[in-house]
Amino acid sequence: MEKKVKMELRVLRLDHRPGRDKRVSSHAALVARAFGASGMIYTGVKDTSLEDSVNKVVKQWGGDFFIRHASSSWKRVISEHKQEGFTILHLTMYGMPFRDVVGKLIKESCPKILIIVGGSKVPSGVYDACDHNVSVTNQPHSEIAALAVLLEHLGPGIEKVEAGFDNASRKIIPAERGKNVVQRSIRA
Amino acid sequence: MEKKVKMELRVLRLDHRPGRDKRVSSHAALVARAFGASGMIYTGVKDTSLEDSVNKVVKQWGGDFFIRHASSSWKRVISEHKQEGFTILHLTMYGMPFRDVVGKLIKESCPKILIIVGGSKVPSGVYDACDHNVSVTNQPHSEIAALAVLLEHLGPGIEKVEAGFDNASRKIIPAERGKNVVQRSIRA
Repeated sequence: MEKKVKMELRVLRLDHRPGRDKRVSSHAALVARAFGASGMIYTGVKDTSLEDSVNKVVKQWGGDFFIRHASSSWKRVISEHKQEGFTILHLTMYGMPFRDVVGKLIKESCPKILIIVGGSKVPSGVYDACDHNVSVTNQPHSEIAALAVLLEHLGPGIEKVEAGFDNASRKIIPAERGKNVVQRSIRA
Repeated sequence: MEKKVKMELRVLRLDHRPGRDKRVSSHAALVARAFGASGMIYTGVKDTSLEDSVNKVVKQWGGDFFIRHASSSWKRVISEHKQEGFTILHLTMYGMPFRDVVGKLIKESCPKILIIVGGSKVPSGVYDACDHNVSVTNQPHSEIAALAVLLEHLGPGIEKVEAGFDNASRKIIPAERGKNVVQRSIRA
């Protein structure tokens, strides 16, 4: 097993279109949170309904995950992250096998990673602007599945992430049958 | 690492609604295929557009994955699969940690598994009719991400699955930059 170092992981979701993309963008954010990213930035159209639903989950289920609309272009978001020391990964079915890239980043103790998740049409410039184009198989499937698998390998592990949500007001007790949810009031 | 045995994996997607669920059901099927399931059965409304899009992927990208609408109820689908020797898993954020259940099934050399992926509202009877309610963390995220992670642990591994798609007419050559797709004609 590769040695895991503490990394800051962020997701950049490209070209969000309210309505059509609500569910996919919302799932991207929730997967990002549950699998250990610190936040998601998105380009495209600002969508307060998307932000509200993600922020509501964070408030109830814990952690300090952020979601933020970028009023600037993806180019600007990438270059700002590069300046801050982030390595830029672009998740694409055309990219190189993720295991090789992940192994390399972990070996190099890469401290900060921005993962780009495409939208409807990914501008060709994204393939050149990133440091690595990575694939979770070269098969057509789902950007959400690919993000989950990539984060599961880059991050500290989903069980560890979940254990860190200690400021949650809502918590599930795993059950063989049915639903067991506990609600607690927490100090502001 | 757990020993992997050859299993038949199928997915049952509940309560598909054309329009609203097209993207999620289609992604569930494509993840099922890419992560090693043999097919997906779905209840709800029959959707030839969903079936066509999945079948088109199979034709181009290889394998023999099937998608099939169940005209009967989920109860019937489950009981028929039980009769055929399938163990029934229900993926739910309320369930028991998947790693424990997966470890048990692999240890028991469980030969056939049906994984239920919920729809808009999961009838409470599903929790009782299945053999195991399993969760990929007890956090709200995405049924597609959960399915991918579960299949990655139950199946032979996505690289091995992909290597088996040898009857594909379309294939991606992984690239550091851009897209490299090869198209070949195959004998019918």
